[in-house]
Amino acid sequence: MTAAGRSPARKSVPRPSWRSVAIVGVGLIGGSLGLALRKAQAAQHIIGVGPNKASLQVAKRRGAIDQGTSDLKRAVKNADLVVICTPVGMVAPLAIDAANHCSEQCVITDAGSTKSAIVGEISSARGDGRFPSGVAFVGGHPIAGRGSSGPAAAETDLFQDRRVILTPERGKNTAAVRKVTAMWQATGATVSCMSPADHDCLLAASSHLPHVVAAALSATLNARERKHSAGGLADTTRIASGDPKLWLDILQTNAAEVIAVIDRFQIALKELRESIAGDDQRKLTNILRKAKRNRDAL
Amino acid sequence: MTAAGRSPARKSVPRPSWRSVAIVGVGLIGGSLGLALRKAQAAQHIIGVGPNKASLQVAKRRGAIDQGTSDLKRAVKNADLVVICTPVGMVAPLAIDAANHCSEQCVITDAGSTKSAIVGEISSARGDGRFPSGVAFVGGHPIAGRGSSGPAAAETDLFQDRRVILTPERGKNTAAVRKVTAMWQATGATVSCMSPADHDCLLAASSHLPHVVAAALSATLNARERKHSAGGLADTTRIASGDPKLWLDILQTNAAEVIAVIDRFQIALKELRESIAGDDQRKLTNILRKAKRNRDAL
Repeated sequence: MTAAGRSPARKSVPRPSWRSVAIVGVGLIGGSLGLALRKAQAAQHIIGVGPNKASLQVAKRRGAIDQGTSDLKRAVKNADLVVICTPVGMVAPLAIDAANHCSEQCVITDAGSTKSAIVGEISSARGDGRFPSGVAFVGGHPIAGRGSSGPAAAETDLFQDRRVILTPERGKNTAAVRKVTAMWQATGATVSCMSPADHDCLLAASSHLPHVVAAALSATLNARERKHSAGGLADTTRIASGDPKLWLDILQTNAAEVIAVIDRFQIALKELRESIAGDDQRKLTNILRKAKRNRDAL
Repeated sequence: MTAAGRSPARKSVPRPSWRSVAIVGVGLIGGSLGLALRKAQAAQHIIGVGPNKASLQVAKRRGAIDQGTSDLKRAVKNADLVVICTPVGMVAPLAIDAANHCSEQCVITDAGSTKSAIVGEISSARGDGRFPSGVAFVGGHPIAGRGSSGPAAAETDLFQDRRVILTPERGKNTAAVRKVTAMWQATGATVSCMSPADHDCLLAASSHLPHVVAAALSATLNARERKHSAGGLADTTRIASGDPKLWLDILQTNAAEVIAVIDRFQIALKELRESIAGDDQRKLTNILRKAKRNRDAL
């Protein structure tokens, strides 16, 4: 199910009409989702859930949510959709908690950057009865972000023309997957489905490796070197400015895949190093050309 | 001589008034220099020199030069300042050629991204009489750039608040260094002096390493991985889009320093990898925090 994309396709998808949506975690992603659902008139009522009153107030003032609360149980009681937009490590416990306090018609989904750990935890919670069998969970990940974070940085169009990957449980919950797909399409995103393992392998390369590389580069340079830099270093290290806590979670929950792709990167770097050390003009030119081609095609 | 910076200091520097400036190479750097000198009313006449008629026409139409020519000898004959803004590998030969056809009062400088190779070539040309002893040469490097290139991408403010490093010959040409300093200050840049070796060591870290890392990252990822990326990968690989020929020159003329700093980067990357592989939360957090601190201080 690789669904719909730009405007023409999107028009054919029925607009979702949620009665009550609970967004757990009203940071950049949760806040932007609220704004986008509001713009698409896809939800009648949006409740924001979080421990931080100030964040909830910002989200409400910005129109991302109608109401804020720290009480997850009450927030999900009447929700027909719960979207968990917290750091990765908190997703599964919150989803399990929500599942035990929502109705059976409710669909729970998330926006976590790694999927195997989350889906695995929920699957074992289903296995031992901690996750009610009637409640649907659909893992999700909108591939969108900014250097900045928090509800003040939220943007209505953050997901416009971005990709969202869903990792549904095998053979289960077709209706729930359709609903979550429609929700993301309402924000302007293109939705596709794959397994959690496939997602994590892909994102290790496309997102986690760039972060690791940017962080290593930023950590390498001393103050004098950084002072004598221009836009190149600033661009290359921009994402190293991301929240260390968020990234700790991401890198820890996807460690094996991240290690594997760091090793692939190290091979490419070693080749570049050798072509410089050996003054191998042809090899160096080929690598620089390939790098440019790949970048220009982004 | 670490000179002047923001507006107050700049005001005290006498505005340079060149009669005739020859800019050799009217790409992004040469074109932007022409626009900036024009805006500062620092030159009465600017001649652009290059092999490509179309580029010269663009530079002239944009107001970066008054006149374009492919004839270096004629262009420098009456110039009191020659600025060579070509790829690194062409700077020394063109400087030597210019020195043999300009007046003894003329000052020659350049904008090349590496300095030891250029200054070394000119020094040995002085030694064997190919570079007239009366003509001053001051190596220079404005630390400014864009992803884009060519005179169409030139910007009047490209050097505003940027750093320019000059690498004057030891104990020589104080007057020439003052003149070149004043020229760059007129464009809004802050000028400092250091040895060519110090410059190349510094820039290997602050500019060449980011390029190598961005290129290796861009070359590592396959099409599917690139397709499932967001702004992070785009930022981190942006400079890999730079001209492979320019970068071949830069990396080859600064090979030893670039190798040394790649090795420093590999140590940082290995530490990060080990902290992920060993699930060492404390170490990983420390590296991510340091990376964020360094980036935020840019």
